[in-house]
Amino acid sequence: MVALTGNRPKGEIAAMQTHEIRLASRPVGAPEPANFASATAELPALGAGEIRVRNQWMSVDPYMRGRMSDRPSYVPPFVIGEALQGGAVGEVIESHDESRPLGALVSSMLGWRTVAQGPAKAFDLLPRTPGIPEQAYLGALGMPGLTAWAGLTQVGQIRDGETVFVSGAAGAVGSIVCQLAKLRGCTVVGTAGSDAKCEWLRGLGVDHAINYKTGDLEAHVKAAVPKGIDLYFDNVGGEHLEVAISLARPFARLVECGMISQYNNERVAPGPKNMMMIVGKRLRIQGFIVFDFADKQREFLAEVSAHVAEGRLKWEETVVDGLAHAPDAFIGLFCGANTGKMLVRL
Amino acid sequence: MVALTGNRPKGEIAAMQTHEIRLASRPVGAPEPANFASATAELPALGAGEIRVRNQWMSVDPYMRGRMSDRPSYVPPFVIGEALQGGAVGEVIESHDESRPLGALVSSMLGWRTVAQGPAKAFDLLPRTPGIPEQAYLGALGMPGLTAWAGLTQVGQIRDGETVFVSGAAGAVGSIVCQLAKLRGCTVVGTAGSDAKCEWLRGLGVDHAINYKTGDLEAHVKAAVPKGIDLYFDNVGGEHLEVAISLARPFARLVECGMISQYNNERVAPGPKNMMMIVGKRLRIQGFIVFDFADKQREFLAEVSAHVAEGRLKWEETVVDGLAHAPDAFIGLFCGANTGKMLVRL
Repeated sequence: MVALTGNRPKGEIAAMQTHEIRLASRPVGAPEPANFASATAELPALGAGEIRVRNQWMSVDPYMRGRMSDRPSYVPPFVIGEALQGGAVGEVIESHDESRPLGALVSSMLGWRTVAQGPAKAFDLLPRTPGIPEQAYLGALGMPGLTAWAGLTQVGQIRDGETVFVSGAAGAVGSIVCQLAKLRGCTVVGTAGSDAKCEWLRGLGVDHAINYKTGDLEAHVKAAVPKGIDLYFDNVGGEHLEVAISLARPFARLVECGMISQYNNERVAPGPKNMMMIVGKRLRIQGFIVFDFADKQREFLAEVSAHVAEGRLKWEETVVDGLAHAPDAFIGLFCGANTGKMLVRL
Repeated sequence: MVALTGNRPKGEIAAMQTHEIRLASRPVGAPEPANFASATAELPALGAGEIRVRNQWMSVDPYMRGRMSDRPSYVPPFVIGEALQGGAVGEVIESHDESRPLGALVSSMLGWRTVAQGPAKAFDLLPRTPGIPEQAYLGALGMPGLTAWAGLTQVGQIRDGETVFVSGAAGAVGSIVCQLAKLRGCTVVGTAGSDAKCEWLRGLGVDHAINYKTGDLEAHVKAAVPKGIDLYFDNVGGEHLEVAISLARPFARLVECGMISQYNNERVAPGPKNMMMIVGKRLRIQGFIVFDFADKQREFLAEVSAHVAEGRLKWEETVVDGLAHAPDAFIGLFCGANTGKMLVRL
């Protein structure tokens, strides 16, 4: 690794190297280390209006799996031989733009590399707030947080006191969903893949935490909330979605945020057997993508920053050190290696 | 059959007989004649505020299949040994209520019998409008029409010029859906189960009528509307729903009105294999029941009555004569015996 210092005066760094992780081949099924390659690249001098950023933290997220396949989606696929992309937070180390000065904290989608550079507008300026660590902008105050907030409030139209079912509840999005629902006086039932994660969820205030790997999922959820659920926040798909349809109360909303149980399937699995209940129960099943709610960023931060600053919102991080281990961190997402947000410290 | 006359003065009829069809046993799979029994019952004298109606037309509708099974639903199941229920239109032959006088045209849910009686408020007063036949209040201006209108406008939020996919397009609801969409300048692709029905649909102005029994459904629909669909009105479920998800454009709405392909299944069939597309395409799949839109009746009639009166809305009826054949008419719904509304003339 090249040691990068952030204190050189503006203009002194004419050329620089970045270490990056590239897509070597497209995964078939679960991603493997061989799908990734590490490389070093020379960076050109900055152009007018550009900035250079030393990434300090990068995010690995389940949705990236979709971009590794070459199929049409809401974001274009990654290109073989090119650096991967994803959320990152870092410090400006060279700037040709006054709005993002040297030393400023910024976020971008130019993760998977030690040094990122480009037009200033590709980087969002972040506040440096005492008590809020930088990496929070990749978690509770970043894309996962906005995903949780937008899914609950904008798509799911959550109402105080409802019964909310959350799958993948110990994940980066799920754990924020659970807490935002609790802050609205809801009864929350969440699932996770280990007893330890369930214990952690109970500590967050989740009313019923269920290890979905033990016993009959529908029976467990039904026992926890016998009157049924008003809102389902789906991170998992598959059996969880079928259970949610089955236990949904009339006019329930099913918010489709992700279906991680399906991402590595090469052959698509059959859908829920109880689709007909959608009619009789007047269910609304609605998918969403966080990018569609970029214009709600201010409203989201106003609510959730206050919860963070005042200690009402907790999260856990699973931190992997070093860019070279970013592929392992990513692969780990699909076998439950993380509690809370999976992060790579660069 | 007892001949009933409608001209006796009020109060003269103390007791009367009704012929009715009762549920003899619950169907297993497709309904059969043995599930029905015909009977004659003595009617008590009218109480205060009650009226007696000679039913002239009754409706058979797919949703009635659900009430024949003993499972929880949005309407309670039919009771074995009791008369079935369903939409009917008739004339008041005795009245203890001034608002529904002798000779008035009324509709009720007391079909499957030649004479209905009960509290006046169980019967809706209908206008006698030149050019609008009485049985239209069981079709385009009745429950099927309100279903089509509410599904398109209230649930599906149809917009002028969209591409609309309709399954069961030659049915009582589907054919109204197609025409209301055409009246909004939409491109309409509809499916039906025979070439004759498709020909009829083309005569209604449907842009692409597809016989779903011949060839690959998805390929046919895709060829007809290669840019995809904005709104799907589902009467059928099963493969049709999977095709709709597959060909949906981003932010498409899928209106779940019914899933007739599934009603007679004793073992539930697996759902769509492409549920994951709900997330990436931000689809909204929403079920509804016409009863929830009773408060929109006036708005619906204002729009659709005008279309009927001015000849812009056409429908076809399949008429079966005589109460004794009502079970056959109902059974026929599940093998495509009807084009347009299936009716029984009493």
